[in-house]
Parts: sequence; structure tokens; C-alpha cells
Amino acid sequence: MTTASPDYSQGAAYVRGQYLPIGEAAIPLTDWGFLRSDATYDVVTVWQGAFFRLDAHLERFMASCARFRLDPGRSPAQITAVLEHCVRLSGLRDAYVEMIVTRGQPPWGSRDPRLAVNQFYAFAVPYVWIANAEQRERGLNLVVSDVQRIPASSVDPRAKNYHWNDLTMGLLGALDAGGDTVVLTDGAGHVVEGPGFNVFCVNALGQLVTPAQGVLEGITRRTVIEMAQALGLPLQVRALPVQELRSAREVFLSTSGGGVLPVTRVDGQAVGDGAVGPVTHQLVQTYWDWHRDPRFSRPVGTAPA
Amino acid sequence: MTTASPDYSQGAAYVRGQYLPIGEAAIPLTDWGFLRSDATYDVVTVWQGAFFRLDAHLERFMASCARFRLDPGRSPAQITAVLEHCVRLSGLRDAYVEMIVTRGQPPWGSRDPRLAVNQFYAFAVPYVWIANAEQRERGLNLVVSDVQRIPASSVDPRAKNYHWNDLTMGLLGALDAGGDTVVLTDGAGHVVEGPGFNVFCVNALGQLVTPAQGVLEGITRRTVIEMAQALGLPLQVRALPVQELRSAREVFLSTSGGGVLPVTRVDGQAVGDGAVGPVTHQLVQTYWDWHRDPRFSRPVGTAPA
Repeated sequence: MTTASPDYSQGAAYVRGQYLPIGEAAIPLTDWGFLRSDATYDVVTVWQGAFFRLDAHLERFMASCARFRLDPGRSPAQITAVLEHCVRLSGLRDAYVEMIVTRGQPPWGSRDPRLAVNQFYAFAVPYVWIANAEQRERGLNLVVSDVQRIPASSVDPRAKNYHWNDLTMGLLGALDAGGDTVVLTDGAGHVVEGPGFNVFCVNALGQLVTPAQGVLEGITRRTVIEMAQALGLPLQVRALPVQELRSAREVFLSTSGGGVLPVTRVDGQAVGDGAVGPVTHQLVQTYWDWHRDPRFSRPVGTAPA
Repeated sequence: MTTASPDYSQGAAYVRGQYLPIGEAAIPLTDWGFLRSDATYDVVTVWQGAFFRLDAHLERFMASCARFRLDPGRSPAQITAVLEHCVRLSGLRDAYVEMIVTRGQPPWGSRDPRLAVNQFYAFAVPYVWIANAEQRERGLNLVVSDVQRIPASSVDPRAKNYHWNDLTMGLLGALDAGGDTVVLTDGAGHVVEGPGFNVFCVNALGQLVTPAQGVLEGITRRTVIEMAQALGLPLQVRALPVQELRSAREVFLSTSGGGVLPVTRVDGQAVGDGAVGPVTHQLVQTYWDWHRDPRFSRPVGTAPA
């Protein structure tokens, strides 16, 4: 043990009442958040010192907690205060900020989730990009996986959760096949979502389409829908057949891990002419423009008391 | 910090190379084993100082690792040595012993699971009973849930995993309804499995039936199948319609958390005459008898070097 002051430069975490450098943050092995993946979470970004759409993320987080009967034990304002303190400790201007509630564990011997004391965790780390700079320039190669996304009849996809084995196994297959990332299907010929993102296309008729069902209702997905409305781009929220994706003019992903990310190949085949298309370019530009719009952006440290 | 010797009486854990009291054992918040439930595990029991079917559990664990492309970094013999040391530290004669591999995490900024250094964890805690003594005496009230078990097309159920949200939400519904535990269905009218157990019935024709598909291939399930063979009880491994379960003479669960556990009510309605039946009694007896059989039982500390 040394008495040097903690180094938060790699990120800062809040663990059961204590702030720690991210490298020291841990969850008890016996927390059902780990042993049963009995948890929910949300991720908000900080860009140039300001939260982007924090209210929307907090609202969804509280809704996710309610769906899984988890209690963060804190109001949205109190959660905001914890997130802000993590960001301030880290000194990061661009950050990936995660809030988590786990089941905790019931008294020893009980298997009743209702008797567990739920636990709140949070952390801020450097901004995460799902696609690196070179991939954002040339566009991603998206692989359509045979793995089916866990259906809504089993796990409610609207409540953000860590049930990612299907996404992980699909991703491994996609990487092996030379792809950059993966999208899963519903087992009935429609694409749904990938690891950490929703998917959109501009179909052969020039219409923006994104899947309606079996997906997380991403805040960035919502931002794309709102941007399309603002820009006068026709958009349909409905089932998206794999074939429609393959024959699309443009394909892109929406994610808090980088905003609007272009896809220029599907299973190695060029989308349209194989270059990042005009609608994607326009949405990327608008996404970052909106980061300077006070309707969506709030500097860290200016939360209402 | 005190210098008192560690207290392992509540259990002992092995965490990334170090033995710790269970209450101090933790996993980094950033391990994908938590943040993506990217992990596999197995549970073996110790009864009266001896492992029960350790070889079968180790074999399944290594197979689970292979299915999820996780590397425990240890041979079955080396894993056995860690498990034995956990049990010895705890001083427990009857123990629930869990071995775990997590993905770990890839280098910062990467999202490629292949670049992660997998991590091995283990712990021994007091023997876990899914049903308490009173429930084992009178039999459990099993609720058939509307929640569908995550299908095999999404997550391979043969590889033991922590994707339990469906089981947990089903269990909460069952507890609210006054049940003791829950069994999920496949969405096509068949029961599959519950939180930590397989299910069997003795149907109206006197045949033992257990579901074939969409379930963990439990070691205790296998033990029941082998006991049925040894006892000359006819057994079918096939789809089990909910209606067949409801009209059964006997119903029981199989689990490392207590062996063969009687169910005497399904959705509050008596199974048969509502008492624990003769086949269930016979299998409970045989299960514990086999714990003294050197074919299955090996005292802790006598592993081959």
C-alpha cells in the first residue's frame, strides 16, 4: 500500500459508496449482478465537457430498473451527481459514462431475489468508439450472423441488459470471417441489432428504415429518428428484411459509442457504390452539431440541484 | 487493515491467483464476464468431505469453455487443485464449489473478444439447497411461467452460463403467485428448465420423462437417468408438454443444489395425491446412497497428481 493520491486518469468509478480509480473498481463475486447477470445499466456520453441527452438516458435507466424490479436507491438527480463526480475525478473531457444497478444478494441460503439489497455502481472512462478513425472514414464491413438475438419473449430488450452471449458469439464469427462487426437476426429473416448498436439503412427506394421490434430502443437511434424528421428524410420503423439491407443504397449504425457509423460493406459486398453515402454523411454531421445544441447538451457540473 | 489471519469460515475463493475469504472476493467492474456476462461456469458439490462426480463436472466445464471460446488456462488436474484448496481453506465438509472463466477484457479501445486475457475464478461456500428442509419434506409448489427460456438458437444451453434474466423474472412472478419456484417453457407448450434445475415427471402411464431440448444437460439430470437405468425405471428423454406435467403422478427437480427435490403442487394444484411419491422417494434415497459409492465420490485431497 502506498499513500500516493489515487490516479483517476484511466477513469473513475463509484462502487457501493466509494470513489475509486477504475482499475481498482470491483464487484463482489457473489453479487447476482455477476452470478446471474441480474442487472441493468445505461451509458451516457460526455463530449467536450458536456453530457449528451443525459435526461433521456436517466429516464430509460429508471424504466429499465422498473422492468427488472431493480432499485437504484437514488433519484435521477442523485445519480447525476455521482456521474458528474466520476467525470470530474477522471478529468476527462470526452467520456463514456456507465450507471449500473445489480440485484446484490439475498441473505445466505435464500434464493428469493426480493430479499436482496440492490447495489448501485457507476464509472467514467475515456470515450469509446465502436469504429476506429480509419473505419469511420472507409465504412465498416458488417456481417449478418446466423445467431439469433435473444427474443423479447425471453428477455425484454427495451431494458438494457448484459445478456450478450449471442452478440459475442456472433461477433467472434464475424471477426473470423474478416468482418468488422456483426448484426443478428430474429430467426425470421429480419435484422435486429448488433453489439452495442442499432442498424439503419437507406433502402433502394431512398427510404430510411430501422427495425421496430426485438431491439434496444437506443437513445442514439431516437436521435437519428429525430434528426431524420428535422432534415425531412422519410423514415420507417418496421421489420427490416436481410435482403432489403443487402440491396440498400446506404447502411449505418447508431450507438453511444460514436454516434452514426457508416457501413460500406455487408458480408464483404459493397453497399451501393461502396463509399459512405450522402444521407450517412448528413446524419454524422448533424449528430455532432447537436452536441452543441443546449436542447441536448448540458455541461458537467451544471445539473439542477 | 488488521493483521488477523483471514476468516474463511463463510467460504474461500480463488481470484486471479490469490486465495481470499469469500466476502473479499471480487471481479473487476470492467471484466466482460460482468459487463457482457461473457463467462461460463460449473458447480460441483462436496458432501461429507468428498466431491460428487467431479470428473463429470470438469468434463462439462472444459466443454462449456470450448463452446464459448474461453480458456481456463489450466488443466482439469490444476483446476481440481484450486478447488480442493478452496474447500480445505473453508474447512467445510459439505460445500457448493464453483469454477468460473470470464472473458477478461481486451486492450483498451479494442472490442475484439479474441484479444482478451481470460480469467479463472473459483470458490467454495456452504452447501446450497434449492429447497429447504420443510420444502423437501412436503414437496415444492412449482409454477409454470409464461416467460420463455432463452432458446438454443440464441444461447447454447449446453454451455453453462449466467444468462438468467428469464429465469429471474419468471421466479419473481412465481414467488408473487405464492409458488416456491418456477419452470419456464419453450413457447410451444413444453416445459424446459428452472433456475438451477432440470425437471422430471412420472407421467400418468408411470413413465419417467425429462425434456430433451433447450435445457442444460445437468450432471444431476444425468445421475437421475443413470439411477433410473440402474433401478429398471422406464425413462423417456423427449419434449415434455405442460399438460403432461400437470397430469403427472409425480414431479421432481434435479440439481446440484440438493439432488432430487420433490414437487407436490404445480400452479397450486396437487400432483397425484399431493404427497411425495414412491419413485421420487426411491430416487432421493439412491442419490444419497451414490454419494458413498467410489464410482462417483472422491474424498477432497485424493486427486491424482
